[in-house]
Amino acid sequence: MKNLIAPTPYRRGRVYLVGAGPGDPELLTLRAVRLLGQTDVIVYDHLVSPAILDFVAPDAERIYAGKRRNEHSMRQEQINLLLVKLAREGKRVVRLKGGDPFIFGRGGEEMQVLAEHGIDFEVVPGITAACGVSSYSGIPLTHRDHAQSCLFVTGHLKDGSADLDWEALVRPRQTVVIYMGLNALPDICRQLIAHGAPPSRPIAVVQHGTTATQQVLTGTLADLPQRVLESGFTSPSLIIVGDVVKLHASLAWFTPVASREEVELKLSA
Amino acid sequence: MKNLIAPTPYRRGRVYLVGAGPGDPELLTLRAVRLLGQTDVIVYDHLVSPAILDFVAPDAERIYAGKRRNEHSMRQEQINLLLVKLAREGKRVVRLKGGDPFIFGRGGEEMQVLAEHGIDFEVVPGITAACGVSSYSGIPLTHRDHAQSCLFVTGHLKDGSADLDWEALVRPRQTVVIYMGLNALPDICRQLIAHGAPPSRPIAVVQHGTTATQQVLTGTLADLPQRVLESGFTSPSLIIVGDVVKLHASLAWFTPVASREEVELKLSA
Repeated sequence: MKNLIAPTPYRRGRVYLVGAGPGDPELLTLRAVRLLGQTDVIVYDHLVSPAILDFVAPDAERIYAGKRRNEHSMRQEQINLLLVKLAREGKRVVRLKGGDPFIFGRGGEEMQVLAEHGIDFEVVPGITAACGVSSYSGIPLTHRDHAQSCLFVTGHLKDGSADLDWEALVRPRQTVVIYMGLNALPDICRQLIAHGAPPSRPIAVVQHGTTATQQVLTGTLADLPQRVLESGFTSPSLIIVGDVVKLHASLAWFTPVASREEVELKLSA
Repeated sequence: MKNLIAPTPYRRGRVYLVGAGPGDPELLTLRAVRLLGQTDVIVYDHLVSPAILDFVAPDAERIYAGKRRNEHSMRQEQINLLLVKLAREGKRVVRLKGGDPFIFGRGGEEMQVLAEHGIDFEVVPGITAACGVSSYSGIPLTHRDHAQSCLFVTGHLKDGSADLDWEALVRPRQTVVIYMGLNALPDICRQLIAHGAPPSRPIAVVQHGTTATQQVLTGTLADLPQRVLESGFTSPSLIIVGDVVKLHASLAWFTPVASREEVELKLSA
């Protein structure tokens, strides 16, 4: 039965939009690994780790498209047109994004431009940060006793404020996951409380989830921002709000093994 | 840099809660494949496809834990205690669930029981159905022009009714993904309209997403339920509600290749 789904032949002049997952290279999909190993050129974002780039074919051209906060090496329009150009040159192109390409990745916008230009493409999902971090921090996103639903939002907004749908975020019996919200954390907690969430509502911030530098802090809307600030957390960090955070105390199983030196080596790479 | 994260040694007497992803075996993670190939026993759910079980070590014991709608081969409490028993026998146990184990998978409940019994465990995230289906149907879950957030809920409720937080579901500029909602589809669409969603709001139903039998129907809250009924869709099917559904027309790229015979072979397996 394994071959029921015929493997798609690798084609030239096609763009593969591939999710790289949350960080741990072992969370790459089989399909991502195969595509990385056979590509002619890879266009990758800041959130893709060096350990994942080790899977790229040695002779492939590597193009860094940036996307670090406040430092966009390439504008989105440039990236879109680069993908069109590379595909028209007959190349197999992997467009690699951290996490899942269709969750806060602008993957949809890039594929729309390809479609408008008649370029062939495929989309390969990746483990989105919410799922990777949930598993590696022992915080289930849903649980019959605590949360019937989960809501994913982004805290990285254009003007620096966190202009979110607060009424939606404070509803009970759900888990809220906030991507790219580290810098807005104090504002986010203040707004949640102002819109009716109890100050005692559990919240976790997970730095560098699924990697050797993962760190988890849990607390409440009232006390966590100050502690995160004191801990010097850096991006990427993910915020999880809801009663499920309480399960971290008994379900945490992952112990990052990096020594301090390795961490510093990685951060400077 | 590839070895920065030391591989966790495989241990006996430990339970690995592993997400099998949405269906396509190529969407298994590297870590899932390694664990499946080295396990002593696997306890798996209905949503895990035969093609994925091909990755399990040939001499591993295979235990089917059921979970088909209205037909639970094992009660949840039985599954919990089975995992404890197998681990205490010194076995390496893979608990394999469709999608991601911490999104509507009761993975949290199972790990809580293991923790209470002092059993060692790990959690390996999988591609959740929302991400797999989103990619393979060309419907981005977020998009700057259409949706700033996405909300995952389940339509499979204990008493057969769909008693959801309708106020949360009808909010604009978000994508709503409903797991296990096929049977409740007419009720879901009726309730969304009754709670203020425009009857013209786009909605998609995707049957057997990412597999050879994937089928996508798109329409509006007003007209889709009848068409899905006429098409004879079966579970698992995923519902996506929101403006992003309109992108399917230009971003659909996946063409299932199964012939009718193969489909029937697979369904009867």
